[in-house]
Amino acid sequence: MQTDVERLYDKLKEEKKAFRKLAKRDIAVDMTRGRPSAEQLKIALPMLENAASLNFAAEGGDARNYGDLAGLKSARELFAEIFEVKPEEVIVGDGSSLEMMYFLIDCAMQFGVLGGKPWNSLQSVKFICPAPGYDRHFTICEAFGISMITVPMREDGPDMDLIEQLVSNDASIKGIWCVPKYSNPTGITYSDGTVVRMGSLRPAAKDFRVFWDNSYAVHSLYEDEKLKNIFEVAQKAGNANMVYGFTSTSKITFAGSGVAALAASEANIKDILKKLGVRKINPNKVNQLMHVAFLKDIQNIREIMKQHAAILRPKFELFETKMSAAFDDDERVKWSKPKGGYFISLDVPGIAKRTVALAAEAGVKFTAAGATFPYKMDDRDGNIRIAPSVPTLEEMDYAVDVLISAIKIATLEKDIAAIEQQ
Amino acid sequence: MQTDVERLYDKLKEEKKAFRKLAKRDIAVDMTRGRPSAEQLKIALPMLENAASLNFAAEGGDARNYGDLAGLKSARELFAEIFEVKPEEVIVGDGSSLEMMYFLIDCAMQFGVLGGKPWNSLQSVKFICPAPGYDRHFTICEAFGISMITVPMREDGPDMDLIEQLVSNDASIKGIWCVPKYSNPTGITYSDGTVVRMGSLRPAAKDFRVFWDNSYAVHSLYEDEKLKNIFEVAQKAGNANMVYGFTSTSKITFAGSGVAALAASEANIKDILKKLGVRKINPNKVNQLMHVAFLKDIQNIREIMKQHAAILRPKFELFETKMSAAFDDDERVKWSKPKGGYFISLDVPGIAKRTVALAAEAGVKFTAAGATFPYKMDDRDGNIRIAPSVPTLEEMDYAVDVLISAIKIATLEKDIAAIEQQ
Repeated sequence: MQTDVERLYDKLKEEKKAFRKLAKRDIAVDMTRGRPSAEQLKIALPMLENAASLNFAAEGGDARNYGDLAGLKSARELFAEIFEVKPEEVIVGDGSSLEMMYFLIDCAMQFGVLGGKPWNSLQSVKFICPAPGYDRHFTICEAFGISMITVPMREDGPDMDLIEQLVSNDASIKGIWCVPKYSNPTGITYSDGTVVRMGSLRPAAKDFRVFWDNSYAVHSLYEDEKLKNIFEVAQKAGNANMVYGFTSTSKITFAGSGVAALAASEANIKDILKKLGVRKINPNKVNQLMHVAFLKDIQNIREIMKQHAAILRPKFELFETKMSAAFDDDERVKWSKPKGGYFISLDVPGIAKRTVALAAEAGVKFTAAGATFPYKMDDRDGNIRIAPSVPTLEEMDYAVDVLISAIKIATLEKDIAAIEQQ
Repeated sequence: MQTDVERLYDKLKEEKKAFRKLAKRDIAVDMTRGRPSAEQLKIALPMLENAASLNFAAEGGDARNYGDLAGLKSARELFAEIFEVKPEEVIVGDGSSLEMMYFLIDCAMQFGVLGGKPWNSLQSVKFICPAPGYDRHFTICEAFGISMITVPMREDGPDMDLIEQLVSNDASIKGIWCVPKYSNPTGITYSDGTVVRMGSLRPAAKDFRVFWDNSYAVHSLYEDEKLKNIFEVAQKAGNANMVYGFTSTSKITFAGSGVAALAASEANIKDILKKLGVRKINPNKVNQLMHVAFLKDIQNIREIMKQHAAILRPKFELFETKMSAAFDDDERVKWSKPKGGYFISLDVPGIAKRTVALAAEAGVKFTAAGATFPYKMDDRDGNIRIAPSVPTLEEMDYAVDVLISAIKIATLEKDIAAIEQQ
């Protein structure tokens, strides 16, 4: 009679055979980053068609000339709609919202926040990093030597009990990273309760800032999930200056060639503009004018985003269908079911690295396992970020088959090792 | 018989009367900044007309998507032509070259240059500032607390004797600001001898950098004044890493909505990209592609710049003609005769502030006197920067009349005060 281990070895052999057969199709699929697909990029082409006939003088000056450090008035108005704040509380810049976040941390380090001490002059600076989260946020902290405190993500946002306790007791905690809507990578949207608690924090540090990276503000796949307005909450809680908001059109028009914006209290905006004015004269206002003419207003943006959703949704659904069929009975394989954004978060404790490595052998690339955690340290070796936007549906079909097979192999290997180590 | 003072008072009375009569025309003329005129901005409009039909996939990827931190290959090639370096030695960014300069100083402060100590960790950091110079360079130094050492500008560039002596003896001197061609504000181009000496410096600080702001690289009003290639000089002198070059299309296409670039050794570029990658994913490559398609190559850029010159030249010449007629015999009033760039430098020792204030009374605004010096301190109260690009020829005619009358009044006032103080 076969032993348990022998049975598992047989299964593994069989699964490996299936994997090799599958891998022969050798389709290169890149799911490492949340890039828009070629099909999506066509949606914004009309923006360029009308570029030469824009009214550059519409706002008094000339959008093609120097001036307007905070961005075009019309662009500030448009982003104010998205942020649900006043235009005076918005700065519209060039394409990268990441660059704005970097700039604000950089300024805080060198010059301090709103008259506070430069963070460089402090013994220790810490940030709270809900994880899994966006790797580029963590990379900024690492570059500046800011210590990262990992806090777990839940279905309704990060662990607020823990965050409240941390920030109220430690004045060296200067900020927190949040992707509050269709979060990167779990896809969840912060609940009203979470937003209220976040906007009502009582941080020991007066210059504590919530970095509210609302990259996916309008990026719904189905009905829009409403995110509570944190600026209003913070205002009411006496925290008017505590929140820096960010967003961009990188996944509305062109990735990295869009327009990014930040929102903050008028006192913050004044402080930021003073520092920004040392660095540049104005953002690309021609690009801003093109964007305003194309995007028009929040209603029209939602219509544009429906076109994106029509392209993205089948990819998310294909993943869901195939993964459900394969693992619905398996408690050890879990994944998120986002209603928007660009990512699905897969949880396979103990086998994330091995799964990603196996998939790569079949030409399917995922973000490196662990990348979604501070210092790239996922203690459970569990999280894999899936970015379904780039592949075609056909490629996606192959990629998920590869992923499923890779998970099965890695699971069997792990089970065998567990028995053999007994 | 009239005394000297009485005669001067009469003259002053007469001149003031003339000034008041002139000022009644009350034409608002803004000559504070080197902005392109509305007429010039039209030159680049064809760039926008063809934006939608660009070949976004020309370089393998998709210019509308993420990637290419150092800029599009074709854009790097184009700016390599302008800098006279290899494309691998170029990073092409968004619109602002000032932002690139800020970034490099900021990184030097926070992280150090090419493995060197962060400048923040040093007791003292100094920059050499040839003056009169570009006020925004000095503002960056001020913001970071970098001490500025003023060095005089000559007809052939800054005082190299002094610079050689300074940098070889003081390791806390970490950089120098240069606008080597059609300099801001004097309009001169560094001689070959100056460039050779600059590229061959023997700084005590290993991480000393020449900030070579070649903003007016192709901005000739007449025949192009050839600037010697400092990268070649530095390479030969064993200083390959010592030079950071900058330029932009702000005065070729659209001001602040153009494309900026930096040039440096491949070792520097590698160091810079590592730091830049923390901050952003890529520059606006759609804008870069638009620019490459419109600008094509250095020959075509020179043709485009001839159109700019045709608009700018008469303004410079009007200034020269009128000022010569008024002051050719007056040793106390001197001005530069630039063959390119955006500025004329006026030298009226002891009366710069008063002259600028008087002109403002007649609606003619110049850059604040002193702005062209570190800490805005022009000890001689002599320098006024004239930016003739924005006004029409008619406005220019009025503005120079106002300026001439203002100089005459200020001179008379000064002469009277001198006699009365005896």
